[in-house]
Amino acid sequence: MIKKILIANRGEIAVRIIRTCKEMGIASVAIYSTADKDALHTQIADEAICVGNAKVSDSYLNMNNIIQAACNSGCDAIHPGFGFLSENPKFARLVKQCGLIFIGPDASIIEKLGNKSAARKMMMEAGVPVIPGSKEILSSVDQGVKLANEMGYPVIVKASSGGGGRGMRIVWEEEEFENAFHSAKSEAKVCFGDDDVYLEKYLENPKHIEVQLMGDQFGNVIHLFERDCSFQRRNQKMIEEAPCYVLDETVRANMLASAVAACKYVGYNSVGTIEFLLDKHNNYYFMEMNTRIQVEHPITEMITGVDIVKHQIRIASGMPLKYKQEDITCNRYSLECRINAENIAKDFAPSPGKINFLHIPGGRGVRNDSAVYCGYEIPPFYDSMILKLITFAPTRLECIKKMRNALSELIIDGVQTNIEFHYLVLHSTKFVEGKYDTGYAQEYIKELKENGEFI
Amino acid sequence: MIKKILIANRGEIAVRIIRTCKEMGIASVAIYSTADKDALHTQIADEAICVGNAKVSDSYLNMNNIIQAACNSGCDAIHPGFGFLSENPKFARLVKQCGLIFIGPDASIIEKLGNKSAARKMMMEAGVPVIPGSKEILSSVDQGVKLANEMGYPVIVKASSGGGGRGMRIVWEEEEFENAFHSAKSEAKVCFGDDDVYLEKYLENPKHIEVQLMGDQFGNVIHLFERDCSFQRRNQKMIEEAPCYVLDETVRANMLASAVAACKYVGYNSVGTIEFLLDKHNNYYFMEMNTRIQVEHPITEMITGVDIVKHQIRIASGMPLKYKQEDITCNRYSLECRINAENIAKDFAPSPGKINFLHIPGGRGVRNDSAVYCGYEIPPFYDSMILKLITFAPTRLECIKKMRNALSELIIDGVQTNIEFHYLVLHSTKFVEGKYDTGYAQEYIKELKENGEFI
Repeated sequence: MIKKILIANRGEIAVRIIRTCKEMGIASVAIYSTADKDALHTQIADEAICVGNAKVSDSYLNMNNIIQAACNSGCDAIHPGFGFLSENPKFARLVKQCGLIFIGPDASIIEKLGNKSAARKMMMEAGVPVIPGSKEILSSVDQGVKLANEMGYPVIVKASSGGGGRGMRIVWEEEEFENAFHSAKSEAKVCFGDDDVYLEKYLENPKHIEVQLMGDQFGNVIHLFERDCSFQRRNQKMIEEAPCYVLDETVRANMLASAVAACKYVGYNSVGTIEFLLDKHNNYYFMEMNTRIQVEHPITEMITGVDIVKHQIRIASGMPLKYKQEDITCNRYSLECRINAENIAKDFAPSPGKINFLHIPGGRGVRNDSAVYCGYEIPPFYDSMILKLITFAPTRLECIKKMRNALSELIIDGVQTNIEFHYLVLHSTKFVEGKYDTGYAQEYIKELKENGEFI
Repeated sequence: MIKKILIANRGEIAVRIIRTCKEMGIASVAIYSTADKDALHTQIADEAICVGNAKVSDSYLNMNNIIQAACNSGCDAIHPGFGFLSENPKFARLVKQCGLIFIGPDASIIEKLGNKSAARKMMMEAGVPVIPGSKEILSSVDQGVKLANEMGYPVIVKASSGGGGRGMRIVWEEEEFENAFHSAKSEAKVCFGDDDVYLEKYLENPKHIEVQLMGDQFGNVIHLFERDCSFQRRNQKMIEEAPCYVLDETVRANMLASAVAACKYVGYNSVGTIEFLLDKHNNYYFMEMNTRIQVEHPITEMITGVDIVKHQIRIASGMPLKYKQEDITCNRYSLECRINAENIAKDFAPSPGKINFLHIPGGRGVRNDSAVYCGYEIPPFYDSMILKLITFAPTRLECIKKMRNALSELIIDGVQTNIEFHYLVLHSTKFVEGKYDTGYAQEYIKELKENGEFI
């Protein structure tokens, strides 16, 4: 069993992981950049080691320093959290080579699933529906145009190593293809150091639905139901809910079965998430697999009662899954709002600074995962998400009402936040009905602007 | 259905009730004393009305001002919370006479159950085990001594209208009887305006186990399982857990059945709690019934998923119980630590003052019910309880570990608190084993003192 874990991350996810370490009797070592010496994760871990300057390449992406910190402090494992090095196969491999356990799937699995065209190919082999598109890397504009004409516009050019909306271009008609192809390639080169792109049929405003999975090192795989993460602004999730309120039961069963089959085919041996897109005709398609813990994992924890981080650590320790599929039940709803320090009036631009006053609501059915405190100075170098407000209740409507109240009680003074925006969304008819798709956030922002509601 | 509720209370329970009102779409009116104008309950209610000076008799016990405030603000109901006027039949009656709904049982039921000797008599009629003792008020020392000799020492002289440990005297041998009788009577006179006392066999260090109940106006009664509230200092509960970890299954079933039978017999029509004492031989005895919401209700909410305040309001609105007994399941554990502003080194004396810094932990399985914030000045006039820290998990041990971690993260700076004491208790073998009784807190405090652990 793992005895001591270095958490190669910061912010609320580092705090989240440290808490579970403590509950499991595992010693925890935080890492921090010079900008994070007063951060909560630095303070609550059993030990904390500075790994470099504020700049992420010097600290939270500094593989050598991080692994050295783990070795020097006597850790036997590294938990990468999300973002940063969490899906970097080189890091996972290096950790293992240094005799440490990487808390995540095997490096080879991260590598395969991280490459979008390779992942797509594997999913097809596993019998999972994929979006119609090129199976291979596009070698030329001509090849792309030929394929696009076959599948019909709109299409999307996507970076093989992409993520977070980077290296992607939607093409609505043939004339735009050449430009899109080149600009996707050059953005991919800059962002990911890899200019390989491939082609897919573009689904206009689908729903984004993802399945949480757990697989162990003995070939056992189970799902923990799905999450609806369709409320996104520029491909960044803002609100997530579990389970999906409007999903047809047959589609749900098929999607969950596809996700489990995919994991089994891949030999997936950690916790992970398969993201699907659901079109207007109830067809779902594999989008990508995230081989790490996700921001929105708490809502799944609240509907199933499973501590996902705990099981991620158990699996990495070589233990078999504690649960069988039939042990996992879901009889509640849960909702998460990502509270960001950002200025909604300035196109949601980050708004770092000092939190002069903080009041986080409590009570029945309210969970908060955060890493901020009264007087904390949010550094400008990292993600603007500072708090995850989570509610859970027997019905979705109760969940929504709890979130409205929790948002109305939440006070973060000193920086701009998106609290008010969330509050408005939670009162919008389309959100309350659960019928929103990935286009809704942008549409709703436009509507608010037109009504002079904010800005 | 009730549309607007005045909450005749303050602190965390007022906040708790206001939150449920908001979720139910019911308008809320807070009342406050001049000392509470900046209190959280005053701030989060839809409206807030000052009902008098800091002194409780001028404000939170001022029936006329409270009822006037309710009428003036257009309320159709009053929720009394706990303490203050919550178990005052005169208030309940007055509320009704003014055309308002009292959110609690009928005044006549409060009256009957509030009188300890009358309650005892009713329980015997309902077939519920009661502690051997006098069925009637003691008229003289001689009558008392005769009865005490029959049942054997130790015995306890108790005020009929008593509560909270006041007006009680334990008598270990005959010579002490006369003094105990007179001092119990005079304390009862001062505290409750009623010097009637009765006699009971004294159970040395039993377990205090109570059953949460809900009855409607149609004769339906269900239980929500039991709570173990044996961790008490001078009859004040400090830590509660649900369900009781060490209760024999047959005893549990009998106790729950007794509690339901008692409520049915009484015609109980609200939420309430029957407190039992469990002796070393697994005999349980009725102690008293609390005809109000209790401090420790959240742990029952966490194990059953039922919003007790919501159902209390529904019942008062005349709605039948939503649940049948078979709907109520319990597959989790929950623990509550009452965080008090008190100085453990000075015999737990209240320690009011300004909270300079506050950090309340969050995360999975942690709930906090509080009414404090950074910069809040705890007034010296009221109860010293400022925060309830609640954890819940599938196993009791996980629950305990979560509580240890939550306590270790909790920071309340500026006033003295009992956080450290709770932290120590949660590491004591007897507590962890669940085998503690009502004598344990005092025993453990003595042990800590002897070891120089605090003071």
